[in-house]
Amino acid sequence: MDDESVLSKNRIEALTDGIFAVVMTLLVLDISVPQISSHYNIGSVAAETELLKRLFDLWPKILSFGISFVILAMYWVAHHRQFHYIKQSNRVLIWINIMFLMATCLVPFSTSLLGEYREQEISILVYGGNSIVIASLLYFQWRYVTTSHHGILLDENLDSIIKTTLSRRTLFGIIVYLIATGFSFVSTQLSPFLFALVLIPAFLPNKTIHRITFGRSHEKIR
Amino acid sequence: MDDESVLSKNRIEALTDGIFAVVMTLLVLDISVPQISSHYNIGSVAAETELLKRLFDLWPKILSFGISFVILAMYWVAHHRQFHYIKQSNRVLIWINIMFLMATCLVPFSTSLLGEYREQEISILVYGGNSIVIASLLYFQWRYVTTSHHGILLDENLDSIIKTTLSRRTLFGIIVYLIATGFSFVSTQLSPFLFALVLIPAFLPNKTIHRITFGRSHEKIR
Amino acid sequence: MDDESVLSKNRIEALTDGIFAVVMTLLVLDISVPQISSHYNIGSVAAETELLKRLFDLWPKILSFGISFVILAMYWVAHHRQFHYIKQSNRVLIWINIMFLMATCLVPFSTSLLGEYREQEISILVYGGNSIVIASLLYFQWRYVTTSHHGILLDENLDSIIKTTLSRRTLFGIIVYLIATGFSFVSTQLSPFLFALVLIPAFLPNKTIHRITFGRSHEKIR
Amino acid sequence: MDDESVLSKNRIEALTDGIFAVVMTLLVLDISVPQISSHYNIGSVAAETELLKRLFDLWPKILSFGISFVILAMYWVAHHRQFHYIKQSNRVLIWINIMFLMATCLVPFSTSLLGEYREQEISILVYGGNSIVIASLLYFQWRYVTTSHHGILLDENLDSIIKTTLSRRTLFGIIVYLIATGFSFVSTQLSPFLFALVLIPAFLPNKTIHRITFGRSHEKIR
Repeated sequence: MDDESVLSKNRIEALTDGIFAVVMTLLVLDISVPQISSHYNIGSVAAETELLKRLFDLWPKILSFGISFVILAMYWVAHHRQFHYIKQSNRVLIWINIMFLMATCLVPFSTSLLGEYREQEISILVYGGNSIVIASLLYFQWRYVTTSHHGILLDENLDSIIKTTLSRRTLFGIIVYLIATGFSFVSTQLSPFLFALVLIPAFLPNKTIHRITFGRSHEKIR
Repeated sequence: MDDESVLSKNRIEALTDGIFAVVMTLLVLDISVPQISSHYNIGSVAAETELLKRLFDLWPKILSFGISFVILAMYWVAHHRQFHYIKQSNRVLIWINIMFLMATCLVPFSTSLLGEYREQEISILVYGGNSIVIASLLYFQWRYVTTSHHGILLDENLDSIIKTTLSRRTLFGIIVYLIATGFSFVSTQLSPFLFALVLIPAFLPNKTIHRITFGRSHEKIR
Repeated sequence: MDDESVLSKNRIEALTDGIFAVVMTLLVLDISVPQISSHYNIGSVAAETELLKRLFDLWPKILSFGISFVILAMYWVAHHRQFHYIKQSNRVLIWINIMFLMATCLVPFSTSLLGEYREQEISILVYGGNSIVIASLLYFQWRYVTTSHHGILLDENLDSIIKTTLSRRTLFGIIVYLIATGFSFVSTQLSPFLFALVLIPAFLPNKTIHRITFGRSHEKIR
Repeated sequence: MDDESVLSKNRIEALTDGIFAVVMTLLVLDISVPQISSHYNIGSVAAETELLKRLFDLWPKILSFGISFVILAMYWVAHHRQFHYIKQSNRVLIWINIMFLMATCLVPFSTSLLGEYREQEISILVYGGNSIVIASLLYFQWRYVTTSHHGILLDENLDSIIKTTLSRRTLFGIIVYLIATGFSFVSTQLSPFLFALVLIPAFLPNKTIHRITFGRSHEKIR
């Protein structure tokens, strides 16, 4: 079958690393150096105070930068972890990955939108929607490679517990995004901060992830 | 002969992956966050409606982004597939590849032109011309490595059917671009959408590609 | 333990190299081509003089570019050297590295701020603070991998002298940054030049680093 | 000795490929989509003519883009070729390479300056000077690794003819740049085109390079 013609995985990893590197760096372009009025004397206390004030005014953009950078890093770590166990690729896997990268490339736009209009319902929906699409594609990609028929793409010695853990971590992220986005209808002011909650599962040990999602803990979790 | 002094292929792959990563990400810079007039109250329904309207106005740019991203991805997949079978490089191959990358770097410009003037004949010609040049260089690169004299650059166990399939896929793309570009003389409004047709061969199984282009199907197609 | 589930190190290296490549290149975007008034005749001596003058006016930006480029290169070399001895990664190491990359991505902003307001206390504090955070994360990363419990991440044959030398080099950099930043309270004009002092340890042989920091020299230093 | 503590070469290659990818792509940002006055009707013949005219006005920028892209590609090919024979790196080699990358990062600036003021003496001097520095650092890098003491960095089976050929190719480039830059004192209009002459040695077989530079041809040149 056409789908089963296998290709090496290293090029996809290289393209993904490259796109993440550019996207993560582009986020900072949104934080531009403030301009202070030219009637201030250089080095004067007044200029100092003015510049300090302007720098503090940048906080929503710096917050958006920080949150987006860390969320992107989480996706990258999840991708890294998946491809650690994937041993080769095929046409379908490449295209799922490209859709994932396309959604990732939109993050500087949706971050910039959220930084500019952080109390508008619509910008939270765009940002949250973007995050949900990215996480869902990661989830779908992992499902694709782990389902029996496509097992040939995967390291055969892969423990089924790792398969499940990776699925649940991603699913957990999607649920947090859905809640954070949905919460924007209650309060547009708190919703952006809720996105930071996705970080929690990233730092929880696998055992806890299992206990939360299944109410019990496996013995052999790594 | 000078041409035959071989070099490793991994550096070309790295440069190509890097340039595609940057080009694919730069495409999004064309979609800038809309500015709404400052007399709207932040968070008000009027501001919401205005912002929503402005975001919808971005659709031609989002469409150009989407089409260009996927077309670039197609080129990248084709390049990946060629270099999967190429085992080493030489001076000529490197320079064909550099010309291919140069044409690729112009895609953000031609996409931006098409997004700005999507109903002007000239912008469709520039965009279509750019696509045709890229696809032709890919085709020419594959011809160069597969012709008998340069066989030393290629994996010797490579099936001749794969050689032919890759050629035909690229040729098919060039034909679709030519038709889409030419159609702009009939209707400038529909032509941009025709470019999306190139995606069809990308998702057709190899068998169908052979049947369409040759009227028959090989047995051993992978 | 969750922390000990090991991952390959090559993807972190690739993301780091990608981000450094973009950040180092973005620095140059701060140096924009000067505009000369259109009433000068093209190619005239007056236009020549005016353009030359405008190019000379760029010196603070070119200086900022040069210093930041070399400082970033130093961090990259330190990272390269650490990962030369690190043989695999885990979740904690990846996240320390991501924090390091996040601080690195802010360098174009803090460089641009310093280039624009080079005699303002606050811009030197931001620039110096950014540098100190980056160097501290590098120091912390090395401590993390070298402490006994995490020894499994490290090449086991690694000489303890190399472990110490890498720590001290980074520590030396942090001290220079602290002095240069603190000196801004004495003179905002000289402080930026003091940052260039970090280059000294980068070019000192390991022996001298040991002698300076410990008052004696080891025999087997490489 | 400190200099002789060897490091792997693949990270330098990755950073170099990344920086070249970004720099080569940034060049295109200089070619911005022309704006036509809003009183033209979209799709009208007048708008078509106006847009076509504006696109033709971009020719000096497109020419600068093309020349700089190909010159950068030449440097990259030369770097690729050098590192094909270099088997490991040390501190000095890394820093020569970083200086080479720093000069490379300035190419978008000097290209943009030449595109904007192509008939000003000063912009040709800046562009030419930048090219000469880059080529000289490449030449110096090759000298450093090939001189006897540093032979340990090089593949030991490397033919001395290849050593000489690489040196001469780079030297040839430097001479062409010097002539092209110097010619700007005669004619600022023709000088930019002279830069394109560097392409000639890139496409000459090694034999001819030897014959031109030494008046005779070696037998075993590859």
